[in-house]
Amino acid sequence: MSPLLGAGAPVLAFDVGGTDMKSALVDADGALLGVRRTPTPVQPEHTERAVLPLLGELARELRAQHPLVVPEAIGLVAPGVVDDETGIGLFSENLNWRDVPFRRLAAEQFGLPASFTHDVRAAGEAEYRLGPSSRFRDVLVVTIGTGIAAAVFIDGEPYAAGGYAGELGHSVITPDGESCACGGRGCLEAIASAGAITRRYNRVAGAGVTGAKDVLARAQSGDADAAAVWSSALDALALGLSHAVALLAPEAIVLGGGLAQAGDALFVPLAERLERFLTFHRRPQLMHASIGENAGLVGAAMRARAVLEHA
Amino acid sequence: MSPLLGAGAPVLAFDVGGTDMKSALVDADGALLGVRRTPTPVQPEHTERAVLPLLGELARELRAQHPLVVPEAIGLVAPGVVDDETGIGLFSENLNWRDVPFRRLAAEQFGLPASFTHDVRAAGEAEYRLGPSSRFRDVLVVTIGTGIAAAVFIDGEPYAAGGYAGELGHSVITPDGESCACGGRGCLEAIASAGAITRRYNRVAGAGVTGAKDVLARAQSGDADAAAVWSSALDALALGLSHAVALLAPEAIVLGGGLAQAGDALFVPLAERLERFLTFHRRPQLMHASIGENAGLVGAAMRARAVLEHA
Repeated sequence: MSPLLGAGAPVLAFDVGGTDMKSALVDADGALLGVRRTPTPVQPEHTERAVLPLLGELARELRAQHPLVVPEAIGLVAPGVVDDETGIGLFSENLNWRDVPFRRLAAEQFGLPASFTHDVRAAGEAEYRLGPSSRFRDVLVVTIGTGIAAAVFIDGEPYAAGGYAGELGHSVITPDGESCACGGRGCLEAIASAGAITRRYNRVAGAGVTGAKDVLARAQSGDADAAAVWSSALDALALGLSHAVALLAPEAIVLGGGLAQAGDALFVPLAERLERFLTFHRRPQLMHASIGENAGLVGAAMRARAVLEHA
Repeated sequence: MSPLLGAGAPVLAFDVGGTDMKSALVDADGALLGVRRTPTPVQPEHTERAVLPLLGELARELRAQHPLVVPEAIGLVAPGVVDDETGIGLFSENLNWRDVPFRRLAAEQFGLPASFTHDVRAAGEAEYRLGPSSRFRDVLVVTIGTGIAAAVFIDGEPYAAGGYAGELGHSVITPDGESCACGGRGCLEAIASAGAITRRYNRVAGAGVTGAKDVLARAQSGDADAAAVWSSALDALALGLSHAVALLAPEAIVLGGGLAQAGDALFVPLAERLERFLTFHRRPQLMHASIGENAGLVGAAMRARAVLEHA
């Protein structure tokens, strides 16, 4: 199977997440070499000061393992609010940084051209460019995992709004509802993310399950608490998506992230609920994300190559 | 005062609304001549068959009054779902038409190049191009009158999504709430449009006021029913706008239409409520529409001139 990403310059790709960071060397054929997951060294403040040296170490190991693949650029992605144009991480509530010029810092540290963008936008771009939704012009790629966020494509191009676009997870579904990590209440993410489904179920049932898929399994075997939590999460997701449909009328909504692995147990009832909120609106095609768990790395590599092309 | 629209080709402009239609001849300086309001001849079906001949009559009168102004194109705008690219009125729930090729029909009838677009998008474009929000790239122009709809500008360009974008009024705020003209329930338009505010107040108070401004006046003089209706409308508007802010993070939201004439009584409590739904989100500047009641005609004229420029 030829690599999804295709031919281009060899680059280093890093996807820094709230829990783990992934790293890989991408060769000239677009293959991801040495994909590895490392715990993110989260600090009470300035997590970037621990992350950047670790990227250096990971890069040295990758280079030692694959001495013939010489990276020409580095692609770095991270969560939070990221301003792609300036390459600055404006804010991350989980990684405790503010206004960090990652693009410049990475370029200086590696002595290579660097790109820095948002993890969900990068993964969404990989999904949109390389997946089946590429035949549409107006698309949302929604990632439902620990959090919920969307990558917005308008007329074929990513729309970032200075790093603030796509915060579907921080749309209020239930005013004065569940507390959210962002400081708000009743956000979609606090009701319907995989993390929220797990937390909410454990709270009502006094249980200790470790993932939303356990909640779904219990719902499917007749656990009423689990069924109620799962159902209310779907209601909230459908309502949040219906607002996006009314305003933007995307041709397709691609769902990815951990929760999307539930497959039909998610897609069928979600489509049914979404339909109830729509009348004359244009129906989006609901699609499964196709790129898999390394979409963030693929997106980081795409952006790194783009930096070289525009240099 | 020089006309807002500026110099260009003379054109005929028509803004067909659910109740009234407006017509004007626009001269080479951009002045609107003979602006006139005529009741829309709404039919149980095929309202277009009564509207188009009436446009012809209005045009003949305008030409007779201003024989030296020779229109070179016609700009027509209407509500409902309009596909700008094909010039087709796909659907209007108030004017009872479906799939009417207005652009072609108008061009044939007048023997002139014609444009056909959506009333709210046309008025929004006039507001965005000619008003103070023109200094921003990402803008929503929201019209709150009989209904609620938005014109969406992304990176300086109108975003139509095949005619389906901007239906903020048909975002569900209260699942299973008030019935809406669109066939849905709990839509923003059914709670917070000027029409809905009037209807809802008359129903709870057993009153017969004729406009939202009467409801506001009663709320301000201590009528508890009026205050409750007004307040719940503001809550719904703020929630609807907060979803747009989370997804698109527009730099500005311009509010126009009848309800916006309430001024500070709308803007101050709305801004306060919107703020409660936001945390790290980018704040939009809330702006008053500046073009006034003929924005639809101005927008129709702009589009008609654009047809000549692209011919």
